[in-house]
Amino acid sequence: MTVEIFPISNFPLVRRGDNIIKLIVNSLEKSKLVLKNGDIAVITEKIVAKAEGRVYTLSNIKPGSKALKIAEITDKEPRLVELILRETENILYLGEGFLLVNTNQGFVCANAGVDMSNVGENRAKLLPENPDRSAEQIRKALEDMFKIRMGVIIADSFGRSFRAGSVGVAIGCSGVEALQDRRGERDLFGEELKVTRVAMADNIASMANAVMGEGSEGIAAVVIRGLDVLGEGSAGDLKRDIEKDVAFKCLKERYNYKNREV
Amino acid sequence: MTVEIFPISNFPLVRRGDNIIKLIVNSLEKSKLVLKNGDIAVITEKIVAKAEGRVYTLSNIKPGSKALKIAEITDKEPRLVELILRETENILYLGEGFLLVNTNQGFVCANAGVDMSNVGENRAKLLPENPDRSAEQIRKALEDMFKIRMGVIIADSFGRSFRAGSVGVAIGCSGVEALQDRRGERDLFGEELKVTRVAMADNIASMANAVMGEGSEGIAAVVIRGLDVLGEGSAGDLKRDIEKDVAFKCLKERYNYKNREV
Repeated sequence: MTVEIFPISNFPLVRRGDNIIKLIVNSLEKSKLVLKNGDIAVITEKIVAKAEGRVYTLSNIKPGSKALKIAEITDKEPRLVELILRETENILYLGEGFLLVNTNQGFVCANAGVDMSNVGENRAKLLPENPDRSAEQIRKALEDMFKIRMGVIIADSFGRSFRAGSVGVAIGCSGVEALQDRRGERDLFGEELKVTRVAMADNIASMANAVMGEGSEGIAAVVIRGLDVLGEGSAGDLKRDIEKDVAFKCLKERYNYKNREV
Repeated sequence: MTVEIFPISNFPLVRRGDNIIKLIVNSLEKSKLVLKNGDIAVITEKIVAKAEGRVYTLSNIKPGSKALKIAEITDKEPRLVELILRETENILYLGEGFLLVNTNQGFVCANAGVDMSNVGENRAKLLPENPDRSAEQIRKALEDMFKIRMGVIIADSFGRSFRAGSVGVAIGCSGVEALQDRRGERDLFGEELKVTRVAMADNIASMANAVMGEGSEGIAAVVIRGLDVLGEGSAGDLKRDIEKDVAFKCLKERYNYKNREV
């Protein structure tokens, strides 16, 4: 019944066009780790995005007039704002040093996940374009190679409302029951459960985040063994019907950046 | 470098006045688990709250006029609303079936964490009154008994803004660097980190939540071994300066339940 988490710490620096599956398999071999049935590989979005060519040199980006305005409001680099806007479906809030947005992929996060760390000077990295698709591709390739059934989660860390600090979140997921629906299940006394939907993929991404760190540790993936959570599911299941989200609605109606000049 | 999570699954039903430390030690013994230096015990708030006598029989509760009004708006049982209001510092939002509140302890969550599952019919359970203090008492007792240094986290699961489902959160913490401050640290290229504050205690609570489940499994605690996160810290560190939280401010200013008749 013990759950084990194996850090995969020997990834090379990843570049555009690298075969992410080969890199993962090489690193597993160096770690002498053989994947088993039921394992979950949690991979930082950083290496997926880099391999997919989502890194841009800022000096090549030309900020538009909206980016220039928002750069002034937020006191951010206009080229960086331009990249953030390209990734943005809705702006929810503009603050000092950050934009809170709903991304094209449907994630509510700061700066659309555009990130200047771990990519080198004067460069910025966007989130993978379709992390659920990336997770599925990686899962299928690893399943074929190891002749097993497994799950793959692509993880980032997001800040959140109401609590300090960032936690791990699943932005891509395949082969894992991402959102467990426990409606109708009963507690120890036979009563209905309070919590009926568990964001299992986010719990697992947080688990990995606790082990991976954010900085120069270079732990780009972990393998989790002993959790019984394989099933159908994608990170898309964790996107809320945002029109029903009270904080989202409140911010959207209050600031309404979409329908007016910023 | 492997991290291990040991579920402690043989807890008895906990009652008011039970010695929670004895129960933990008994369950560890039955699991043949000896605590080691650096371990973290994550304990569900349910058993802590029960031992502390935070369970109420609803038929003994007399709802006040405010509770009656809010019960009508939210379509909830008036006695349950009365208990929720006693635990509430600010109401942020009233919706169908729930109140989003800031609790007396400073947590933003649905229904002030008041919960009717796993306590028996016609009864409701509040959160521990001071979970950081409870975590510290448990940590000190276990440290003395096992002659080690360790961490203790008291975990609940909360829904959150912008994403579906609930995740584990640390509502009490002792002996763990709950909020890691990484400002000034550098990435693989020597650049500053994007994410500078990691909610490590919440990541660990989510880790435990993935293993514990919510229902009749009866896993009331886990022991995590191999994470290097001992230090000073409390769950209080994870409370945000809420006046700086954009969603909190927006909801408070919009609905302003405090300063008007509900």
